[in-house]
This record gives sequence, C-alpha cells and structure tokens, in this order.
Amino acid sequence: MHNYPQALKQLIEALKTLPGIGSKSAERFAFHILEKPQAELQQLANILATCKEKIPTCDTCGSYFDGNECPFCNLSNRDPSLLCIVTHPKDVFAIEQTHVFKGLYHVIGGVLSPLEGKGPDHLKLPRLTHRLNTLGIKEVVIAIDSTVEGDATSLYLQQELAPFNLKLSRVAFGLPLGSSFEYVDQGTLASSIYGRKTMLPQ
Amino acid sequence: MHNYPQALKQLIEALKTLPGIGSKSAERFAFHILEKPQAELQQLANILATCKEKIPTCDTCGSYFDGNECPFCNLSNRDPSLLCIVTHPKDVFAIEQTHVFKGLYHVIGGVLSPLEGKGPDHLKLPRLTHRLNTLGIKEVVIAIDSTVEGDATSLYLQQELAPFNLKLSRVAFGLPLGSSFEYVDQGTLASSIYGRKTMLPQ
Repeated sequence: MHNYPQALKQLIEALKTLPGIGSKSAERFAFHILEKPQAELQQLANILATCKEKIPTCDTCGSYFDGNECPFCNLSNRDPSLLCIVTHPKDVFAIEQTHVFKGLYHVIGGVLSPLEGKGPDHLKLPRLTHRLNTLGIKEVVIAIDSTVEGDATSLYLQQELAPFNLKLSRVAFGLPLGSSFEYVDQGTLASSIYGRKTMLPQ
Repeated sequence: MHNYPQALKQLIEALKTLPGIGSKSAERFAFHILEKPQAELQQLANILATCKEKIPTCDTCGSYFDGNECPFCNLSNRDPSLLCIVTHPKDVFAIEQTHVFKGLYHVIGGVLSPLEGKGPDHLKLPRLTHRLNTLGIKEVVIAIDSTVEGDATSLYLQQELAPFNLKLSRVAFGLPLGSSFEYVDQGTLASSIYGRKTMLPQ
C-alpha cells in the first residue's frame, strides 16, 4: 500500500471490509470521507454505532424490524397458512417488494456449506420446527438461491420438513422476464425447460 | 425504496454518500453491516469520527500527514528547488508511489469550474505564491488531469506563475505504458503525437 499516514491506512482497511470493496475503492472512499465536514462524519459514526440496536432481528421470523412490532409476523394482516423460507433478511424485503406473497417468513440465516464448515447447526431450524408445529401452516415455499449450496440446503429442508405433512415448493428458476434465449446461460435455459408450465389441456 | 425500517433507510442513505455508490450497493453494504458484531461497528464508528483529527491537512503543502511532521515538507530530504502542483492530496500519494519525484508538493484543492461556480478563489493559491517567493523554487511541475477544467486551471496557473521567472512544465499526456494504438482513444493519441520526444539528432 502507498506510504499513507497510519490512521489513513486504518481507515482504508476498515472500509475494505465492505462487500466487494478492494484497495482502490477503499482508498477512494477514504479520501472522499476526509473531505467531508466533521459533523457529517460524526453523524455517520453515530448511525453505524447504533444501527444494530435500532434495527433488531425479530425473534420469530429472523428478519429486521423497527423495534416496535415485526410487520411480517403480524398474523392479523398476513396469511398464517403460508410460510416462505429465505436465507437472509434482505430476501424478505426483496420478496415483499413484489407484493405477491402475503404469508409469513422464516430466515434461516445461511446455507449449508461443508467446505466452510457450515452444517445444519448453522441454520436457524429449531424455531422453524416450533412454528410449523404451532401455527397451522399448510404450505411452505423455499426461496433459496440456485447455487450448489442452495440446492443442497433445499434438499436438506425437503427431508427435514417431510414429516410435517404440508405442501412444499421451491421458487421457479428460468428465464428472467424480458430476457432472450440468445443471451441466457445453458443452466438457466435447462431450468426453464424442466420447469415448463402446461398450457393445454387447460 | 423498499419498505425498510426507518433506521435501515437512514443507514442506506448515509452509505449512498460514498463516491460511486448507488441504492443497490448501499443496500448491500447496509445488510452486510447489520451482520457485523457490535464491537466491530463501534470500532468503525470511532475510526470515522476521529479520522479527520488524526489525519490533519498540512498547512504548508495541503496534503495529509500523521500529525507529527509533514514528510513532504521536510526540506532535509526533499529537493527544495522543485515543486509539483496537484489537485487533491491523493495525487501526492500517487506520485510519491512512483519514486521519481523528490521535490515539494502544493495541493490547490480543486480545479477551476465556472459551471459549478468555482473560480480562482476556490484554489489555494496565496500560500503557493508565498512559497514561490521564499523557498527558492526553480521549477514547477503541474500535475493536473487533462480535462476541460484541468486544462483551464493549468492555463490559469501558467499566467499566474509567469512573473516568477521559473521553469514551468505540465506532466505528459499520451499512451499509457503497455497499451496499444488499437485501443487508445483519439484524444490520447493526438496528445501522444503533439508531445512526441525527439530521438535524433541526439
């Protein structure tokens, strides 16, 4: 690294912990930050220091909420017979944005990854079992990425949820809307053929 | 924006002030930050709140230093007859990294930009005049980007420094090392032809 003052090196290293940020971007951020007024930096520091406290994780679904009442666990305006399993809280907000899912959510907090030493103990499953036993859920939708780890996690969940006698599905993988066969990869194309939807007989 | 908790929206907005960071990246940073341990966030907050204090701007050259003694203004190991004018402190560190310049620096803090209302008053020039009058500088190198504003600023400096009776130059613009004529833009190519170096007669 350049011959920066020690505190500048420390600032750059701290910024490099952001996802997808390497040395060059972190240096750019650091020089930009040093030109900001102190009041703005103090405000940014306060936001960072208090964000975890102000945005707690819901004990029930595992998503983030504002600390009052989790909007995703409010049974009065959600369908309690339907539950969607996602990996991270951000997936909850992404699905909510579609306005097509009105059921409950359960964030399992990650995927199975034997290479990283992440087994079933790393997934937040005991609470899921408890919810399935008590809430009268009839259908579970698995909304997990189609990666090797995601597929393994889905298969694991399929086994674990088999005793609960409920409808289990996984979100569809196929061509993104507006895309063209010409530009789509073979794996996605294969998924779209395997997952084809019957049109006739109606 | 998604229906995020208020504090999460605030965190995302704060992260969007980083250069080149839009909503998508800011959201990614925010969710990543929320998964960090509180101790790490507190440390990051402390670094941000104290960085301006720990990395002050040198009153003489305008670059950043560690608060003890500015290494770029130490006349005992710099050539006091040579001075390089740059726009931002980051340019000082970039030039230092080349190890080919051993003179002094002067950060002018920006470029002339009439459209943004930035005239000569926005450039840190009085201190430069003072240094040229007192330090016995014989040569000044202008290391400012080759943009419309950068070219205008260079021309302005050329006029302002004319009375000082010193050698004035601007860094060369041309093909980057290792690049090919095939891929380089016309402007750069034209610069490389205008700035051609004599090989013969030696």
